[in-house]
Amino acid sequence: MKRNIKITGIGSYLPKRIVDGAEIDKIIGAKNGWSEKKSGVKQRYFVTDETASYMGAEAAKKAIADAGIELNELDCIVSGSGTMEQAIPCNASLIQEQLGLQHSGIPAFDINSTCLSFLTALDMISYAMESGRFNHVLIVSSEIASVGLNWSQNESSILFGDGAVAYVFSKTTETDSSHIIASRMETYSAGAHLSEIRGGGTKIHPRNYADDTKEDFLFDMDGTAIFKLSYKLLPTFIEKLFKNTNLTMDDIKMIVPHQASASAMKIIRKKLSVNEERFMTIIENYGNMIAASIPMALYEAIKQGRVKRGDKVFLLGTSAGLSIGGILFEY
Amino acid sequence: MKRNIKITGIGSYLPKRIVDGAEIDKIIGAKNGWSEKKSGVKQRYFVTDETASYMGAEAAKKAIADAGIELNELDCIVSGSGTMEQAIPCNASLIQEQLGLQHSGIPAFDINSTCLSFLTALDMISYAMESGRFNHVLIVSSEIASVGLNWSQNESSILFGDGAVAYVFSKTTETDSSHIIASRMETYSAGAHLSEIRGGGTKIHPRNYADDTKEDFLFDMDGTAIFKLSYKLLPTFIEKLFKNTNLTMDDIKMIVPHQASASAMKIIRKKLSVNEERFMTIIENYGNMIAASIPMALYEAIKQGRVKRGDKVFLLGTSAGLSIGGILFEY
Repeated sequence: MKRNIKITGIGSYLPKRIVDGAEIDKIIGAKNGWSEKKSGVKQRYFVTDETASYMGAEAAKKAIADAGIELNELDCIVSGSGTMEQAIPCNASLIQEQLGLQHSGIPAFDINSTCLSFLTALDMISYAMESGRFNHVLIVSSEIASVGLNWSQNESSILFGDGAVAYVFSKTTETDSSHIIASRMETYSAGAHLSEIRGGGTKIHPRNYADDTKEDFLFDMDGTAIFKLSYKLLPTFIEKLFKNTNLTMDDIKMIVPHQASASAMKIIRKKLSVNEERFMTIIENYGNMIAASIPMALYEAIKQGRVKRGDKVFLLGTSAGLSIGGILFEY
Repeated sequence: MKRNIKITGIGSYLPKRIVDGAEIDKIIGAKNGWSEKKSGVKQRYFVTDETASYMGAEAAKKAIADAGIELNELDCIVSGSGTMEQAIPCNASLIQEQLGLQHSGIPAFDINSTCLSFLTALDMISYAMESGRFNHVLIVSSEIASVGLNWSQNESSILFGDGAVAYVFSKTTETDSSHIIASRMETYSAGAHLSEIRGGGTKIHPRNYADDTKEDFLFDMDGTAIFKLSYKLLPTFIEKLFKNTNLTMDDIKMIVPHQASASAMKIIRKKLSVNEERFMTIIENYGNMIAASIPMALYEAIKQGRVKRGDKVFLLGTSAGLSIGGILFEY
């Protein structure tokens, strides 16, 4: 269903510390250049003293300024992140606090579908906005991957980076053509354990942290299996998403994929028969930023002038779960 | 905004192990009868080998059978829980797996606002259902509080219990009068640290678990401060929620509050000038089940015949965040 909302503001926050390939090679004991060649990631950002709520709030302040609204004009704050800052309360509440909105009453909650959290948050909130519940909604994806990386699993540890992106979405006015055209999500828990952190929740409480259990508290990924499953499911998923839209892939100005890995994105791009110009890739400079990847790539596409008002954009990603998600919209 | 959806199925799962007041008294070293007198909780359930996804799936199977639909008729699975089973992926995906729906593609994600997660999930999903995105949605609140209790904090440790509740919500047909009348949520992060678990996320990773940090990984609550803040905010919140509904508290057949604590509920009930019959209390037999409290109390009200089709019901709660949430609906 068409939802008449538009992006009115965007902001990002990147940690102070830049970590290049050489530093990663040193950590994992590889020869210089190996990690960059293997992952396609030249640099990523790792937090030092930054928290997820701090980064989220810094990104949010920029997005709110960009939207030209006051902080207290926000009607809702949603955290769309795959990681939590602390077990309780939810991230959105901590971001509200960092924004100085402690007494505002602006509703704040989290939507989590791991790497697709930003998409799911946007997808669900757009219905509430279309129905008139909210006028301006802040969606923040703020992720700290670095703290949970398993440095003995090179496949994943060389890929990830930290950072935050925030968007203000607003109901459109009569003169706007911006809108969400279609959206879709599918979850196949046959892949639920292909990328996971088993510990940290109620199943394996932190009190069980020990030398022989410590990997349960770190990210564990079977990238090849994820890719195989996603690759098989993707064509039908896209077909169903485009159905009833009167659009084909040719109508899309920019495909903004989850920055899962450089090699996976390359294969997907070829599968979709799309040239590099229409397929946004930022993994080289940021790594995989979990749920912040798609909104950061979209932000870069807009900043670089590669997506302009009126252009049709296709956000597409996979996540732990295993889920596939997509949103077609006119910017 | 009116949303034409109704409850078509409900199910619950309670852990095998019942823990009575005497057992709690023994754990905390109090004299027999103290914890029950202080908390109003006669018994609660604690998991032994059950996981949150197992409990959630068991509750869900009953809800789906109660709705008279097949598993694969579900259009969406939402976990509305304040605790996570593991850090990655989200609970809903693990529940989908336990339901044997691994290859179904049914979208699965989490909505988290701690104790209000069920309400927030219902509130947001109802707009997507009203817009035609989903026909049948499963919302599951499955909580394991026991693993995170701090037994040196009597105020909170004597209150909580584990368990799961699941609801199927369906779009109404023309003959149904069931609908959501109004809903509202407010967040005041001035109270963000009045109830929290500081550790377990990206801020204090489980690797920091040690004798002098272990309390960071346990629930920490200042009940008096929470109550004071909530009590002050509640009248205006309720006034705003009822505004434009043409309803007053007298039109409500049953108020179903979050089962935060027996004493807090009693004061709130008197503040609302409502008699015991119209104010659902189940804390005596279940304790505070985090986000599962409100849906469990509603389930009990329906089972006991105290809420019937056509009755107007008011779900109301507070949560870590600090948030206040309410949903007015016709059952």
